[in-house]
Formats: sequence, structure tokens, C-alpha cells
Amino acid sequence: MNDPSPLYVGQLNTPDRDAARREFRTIFERRFYTNHGPLVAEFERRLADRLGVAHVICMTNGTVALMVGASAAGLTGDVITPAFTFPATVQALSFAGLNPVLADVSPQWHSMTPDTARAAMASTSSRVAAIAPVRMWGRFTGEEEKGFAALANELDAALMFDAAHALGAGEGDRLAGGGGLFEVFSFHATKVLNCAEGGCLTTNDDAFAAAVRTAANFHDRPDDVDVPLRINAKMSEAQAAMGLLGLDALESVLEANARRYAHYRDRLDGMPGIRFVDHADTLVSNHQYVVMEVEERFPISQAELMQHLHNDGIIARRYFYPGMHEAPPYNEQDWNVPVTDGLCNRVLQLPSGEMIANDDIDRVCRSIEAVATRRKA
Amino acid sequence: MNDPSPLYVGQLNTPDRDAARREFRTIFERRFYTNHGPLVAEFERRLADRLGVAHVICMTNGTVALMVGASAAGLTGDVITPAFTFPATVQALSFAGLNPVLADVSPQWHSMTPDTARAAMASTSSRVAAIAPVRMWGRFTGEEEKGFAALANELDAALMFDAAHALGAGEGDRLAGGGGLFEVFSFHATKVLNCAEGGCLTTNDDAFAAAVRTAANFHDRPDDVDVPLRINAKMSEAQAAMGLLGLDALESVLEANARRYAHYRDRLDGMPGIRFVDHADTLVSNHQYVVMEVEERFPISQAELMQHLHNDGIIARRYFYPGMHEAPPYNEQDWNVPVTDGLCNRVLQLPSGEMIANDDIDRVCRSIEAVATRRKA
Repeated sequence: MNDPSPLYVGQLNTPDRDAARREFRTIFERRFYTNHGPLVAEFERRLADRLGVAHVICMTNGTVALMVGASAAGLTGDVITPAFTFPATVQALSFAGLNPVLADVSPQWHSMTPDTARAAMASTSSRVAAIAPVRMWGRFTGEEEKGFAALANELDAALMFDAAHALGAGEGDRLAGGGGLFEVFSFHATKVLNCAEGGCLTTNDDAFAAAVRTAANFHDRPDDVDVPLRINAKMSEAQAAMGLLGLDALESVLEANARRYAHYRDRLDGMPGIRFVDHADTLVSNHQYVVMEVEERFPISQAELMQHLHNDGIIARRYFYPGMHEAPPYNEQDWNVPVTDGLCNRVLQLPSGEMIANDDIDRVCRSIEAVATRRKA
Repeated sequence: MNDPSPLYVGQLNTPDRDAARREFRTIFERRFYTNHGPLVAEFERRLADRLGVAHVICMTNGTVALMVGASAAGLTGDVITPAFTFPATVQALSFAGLNPVLADVSPQWHSMTPDTARAAMASTSSRVAAIAPVRMWGRFTGEEEKGFAALANELDAALMFDAAHALGAGEGDRLAGGGGLFEVFSFHATKVLNCAEGGCLTTNDDAFAAAVRTAANFHDRPDDVDVPLRINAKMSEAQAAMGLLGLDALESVLEANARRYAHYRDRLDGMPGIRFVDHADTLVSNHQYVVMEVEERFPISQAELMQHLHNDGIIARRYFYPGMHEAPPYNEQDWNVPVTDGLCNRVLQLPSGEMIANDDIDRVCRSIEAVATRRKA
């Protein structure tokens, strides 16, 4: 197994190169490179149509979109958000002037639930201004969304979803995008829809959409409204060109993701000491993430298995390591997040995306199997 | 004079299209789209060399670069910055958690000086943590920079320059980039060096550079250091590709800017009621901005002249309108900035950049002359 080409976690669903060349040529011909050009406008329209949401506001990346959204909502005080998430979630909320209160997550699905959010309120005596769940690994359940909405309503708090993982996830016709006051998506190179860098905010609230459009750039327009602060968060035309081509390819990307995921599941599900994290809780999944837990009874630890895989040229990654409860500046406080703590030491994310063929998946699984058959030290 | 093609203020110095196509092709072949790829690394090296500064850290845009820099500096308290500036300066400092104190500017050069910065301290009783001058219209004087450094030293405050306008401006070999703790530049489509969107932070401070590199992305690297907050501020490879081509063309862009500027000056300097704002205070200017003041004795006001020019298809712009002292949220306080107040009602910026030929400049000047000869109402 001396395959020389390393396998990475990152999804790279890249558009057809000739199509990209044609799109870039139109930008140069038009000489309209940024400041809400025609391609950004078209990308926003098509995304709104695809996601079934009234407003899509494209931005330079998903992290900045979350920061701008939280800031434009004009909130001050605490925001309840999971400790088990990519750092961007929590740090963007801090940049927006909110005070993150870290909640634990469900052991099965790895995501904050209405119950774990409520339990986190024991960590604060201040006002909860917002609840910011993460659609972890693209998880979407309408039932749970109702639970979050009820909690937000009870607390008079704003509800905002970090849906960076969740483009295309949903239940039947109802896709992530219309939850709470707003949701944000990422179009980073590693996502199913790739603008190299990019992201957007989605909302069904007309007044809030106007506030976000005002807050996300400095160009005075007749429909500007008062917002707490403004920043340059604009998406360029080149980013939108990539995004539009990505939208054209999205169905086939999702189908290929589902096939890869099924191949992984067939080989890993039931392997002793490995818990394959399935997406059964989400009716329509984008299958973007292939995630497993290295259980206590597995012969070696998560960190050791990661190193073993790296030695085999398989660049699996610990997610999320460290957890936000152990990362500065949030580690200055003690948080009661035992599930997160365990997951940070058990979860591995496996290579997926368009560069990973079934043979590659077999190679990954053989490498894991080679260790699984050892005796635990 | 029924020329149908409108003339815009924006500079659009675009790279050769074939060269751009070749650069984009290498990105697709390499499949490395963002996360500090080889083109960003090369762009940073070449910029550092060009500007004579130890560290260049490219980011998604100049506004975010200022926000990240001010945040990474770990400051709390007041920051003295001019009221006469693009909103991004002040709002980025607010997003970084600083409290802007608005200073007035020099009537001749339109920029905050060490004296106007010191005068602004009357508006605050809190600690001044930072001074953030703007290199307005690309202005650079080493003498004044020394004055700011002395004031910052006296107050134990950090000094940071918004040099968004000032790429290539300087005195002999000494160019903007190495002033204070850091400077930020913009590579917006309207700048002499154009990445569509883009910007960078420059510094000679090794420890601060490490802090900024840590703060500007979420990718753990061995040389990460503790920073207050992190955010995704990454520049993509496509942005860097545009920037590298822009660097190749920079000398010819600057020469063309100087020619356009001289042509404007020859026609406008001395026109009654018009004050052509020359760049004589800056030994090496990028001549990016063609700026004039509509004086009291001119037959019509700035706003009326702007409308007159628009009617002639000349999209001149008021800069900066409104001033930051009149824009939310800063207008909640009364500021003593009479010079700024006057400039906001006198300054017009005229069309320049690569799409403006001498004939276009003649057309602009004829349109102004047509009004100048009227009797004042």
C-alpha cells in the first residue's frame, strides 16, 4: 500500500474549466468586477430559488456573513452556541459584540439541541440575546428547529443558524435556509458549492434583509436603513461565477457524495471500535462529511489512528480539535460540556469530495482495518 | 457634447486578459484555490519587496485587514481617527472593539495631522489606545509620520495607518507600508493595484505579524500565537493572481495616472472658484485621485455641480459625503470638526483610471468651465 498520492479531507468540487474560462471572460468584457455585479445578483436569485427562501445576500465568506448578520441584528448580551463546532462560529459571534455561552451537544448527532441549549443557561446569569445552533455535518430536522424557535420565543432571543455545512440539507422540499431570523452558508473550497472563498446569509425577513444589505457594504443606496455598523463583506463577480457553475453541478455533486458516503458506510458500519456517524436523522442530506468516532475499545486512540492514517498518506482530520471550550479566549471560563470533551478526542473526519474514488475509500478502510485487528494495548 | 458613454470615478486598471487566463488555468491545474496558496505567498513576497517592508499579509479586503489588525493588536479604549475619510476606516475600528474619536483634518491636504489628532483629545476623557491616521488621497510625508510616532509614543498608544489610497506613495525609496505598528492597503477594483476585492496589512514587527497571521484564519500552524480573536480574512488564489498581474503593470499604471493628473491640473488649476487639490506635499504620489474643491465663489454649489456633471454623463462623486461625524452611529455625539464639515460640502472627485483618455478629461473640464463662466446666483 505504497500509494504515493495523499488523500485529503477537503471537498474540491470544481467547475468545468472551459465553462469557468467563459464566465471569467464575460467579467473582463463587462469590466464589472465587484460591488454587487450581475453575476452576484444572478447567483443570489438562483440560490434563493434553490433554497426556497426570500432573500440571499452573498458575502466574501461565511464567517464574515455570520459576523455581519449577528451585528446587523443589533443584539447585545449572551449568545448560546455549541462548544463542538468550527472556531468560526463562536469567533464571528464574538466579533459581532456578543458574548458566547458554550452549550454541549448530542452524543448521537454531535449538534446542540434545544435541551443542551437550555442546559447551557446555567452557565450565565445575563440576558440571552441570541441562540446560534450549528447544522453540524449538514444535519437538518424540522422538529428540532421548532424546538429552537420555541426556546428563542420564550427567551425573547434571536435565532440564527450556522448552516455552513448544510447547503442542500433538509426534509423533502423544505431545505435549510429559512430557519430563525437568518442562516449562513459557506462556499469555501471545501464545501459542496465552491466559490474558493465565499458565503451567504439567507432570511425570510424583509426588514432584516435590508439591514444586512446595508451592513455588508459601504455603497449608499436608496433602500439603506439604519444599522449598528457597516463593513466591506462584498462577494466579487469572480466568486459568483464559480458559485453559478457550482450550482449547475450541484445535483451531480450531491449524488456523488451520497455514493461515496454509502461506500464508506458499507465498509465501516459495524467495524468493532468504530462508530460510523450516519445522517439518518436528516431526510435530505448533502453527505458532505464522512465522520466516525474512535471508541474506547478500539485498539488505538483517535490521535494515534490519525497518525497511522497520515503515515499511509491519508490526511484524516480531528474535528474539532481543540473544542471551543479549550480554545482561547473561551477557555478562561469553565464550561460543562462533557459530551463535547469526549467527541473532541474521538471524532475523525475521513477524506471525501470529488478527488476521492471508491478505490481511495477502500484504501482508507483497509488502513483502518489493519489497526482494528490489533489487540488493544 | 452628447457623448453617450458615462465617465466614472473608479479606477479599473485591469490586467492583460491572456495573462489572466494563463494564471487562472494554473490555479485549476493545481487545484489549490485558497488557504494561503502559492500565488498568495508569491504576491506577499513581491509586495514586501516593492514596499520595503518585512511582512505583508494579504486578506480578503482592506477593511477587514484594518479590523483584523486593530483586533490583533489587543487594544481597548479610544482610537483617534479622522472624520473626513471613507466610512470603512472608522467602522472597521469599531468592529475591532475600539471607540473612535473623530479628529478634524488639514484644509490643504484633507488629512488628519499630529496637531488635529492632539486637538481631538479634547473630545474624550478616556484612555487613547491608538491613533489611526489616513494617508488621504495617497498622501505621504515622512516628517508628519514622525510627528504621529512622537504623539503615539507620548500617549503610549499604538499607531496604525489606513493607507488604502497610498500604494506606491512615498519619499524617494521610502514608501508607505512601514509606518507605525502596521498599515493597511486596499486592492479594490477602484485602486491602482486591483484584485477585484482584496487588501493587505504590512508591518515590520515580527511578533505582531505572527499575531495577524494567526488572527486572519482558522488554520492551526506551528507558529500560531495567542490572539484576542480570529476570523476568516483569507485572500484566495484568484485574487492573488489578479494582484500579481497588477504588480507587473504597476509602473505603467502609475505613469498613466501621473499623465492624467497633469492633464487635469493644467486645465483646472487656476480656474476661478475651483481649487485643484495637488499632491505637492507627497514626493512620490500614485496620482490615483483627482480631487477638487468647489469654492464659495464658484457660481453653483458642489451638489449642483455634481448634478450638472451627472447630466453630462460625468459621474463625479462627493467625497466623503456625509462625513463620519454626521453618519450613524457616530453622529450621536457632537464633534468639533469644522474643516471636515466644509470639505464634505466642497470636495468632488473626478473620473480617472485607465478608461479615461485625455479627450475624456477635456470633456470633464469643458463641462466644469461651462458653469464657471456663469454669474453666481
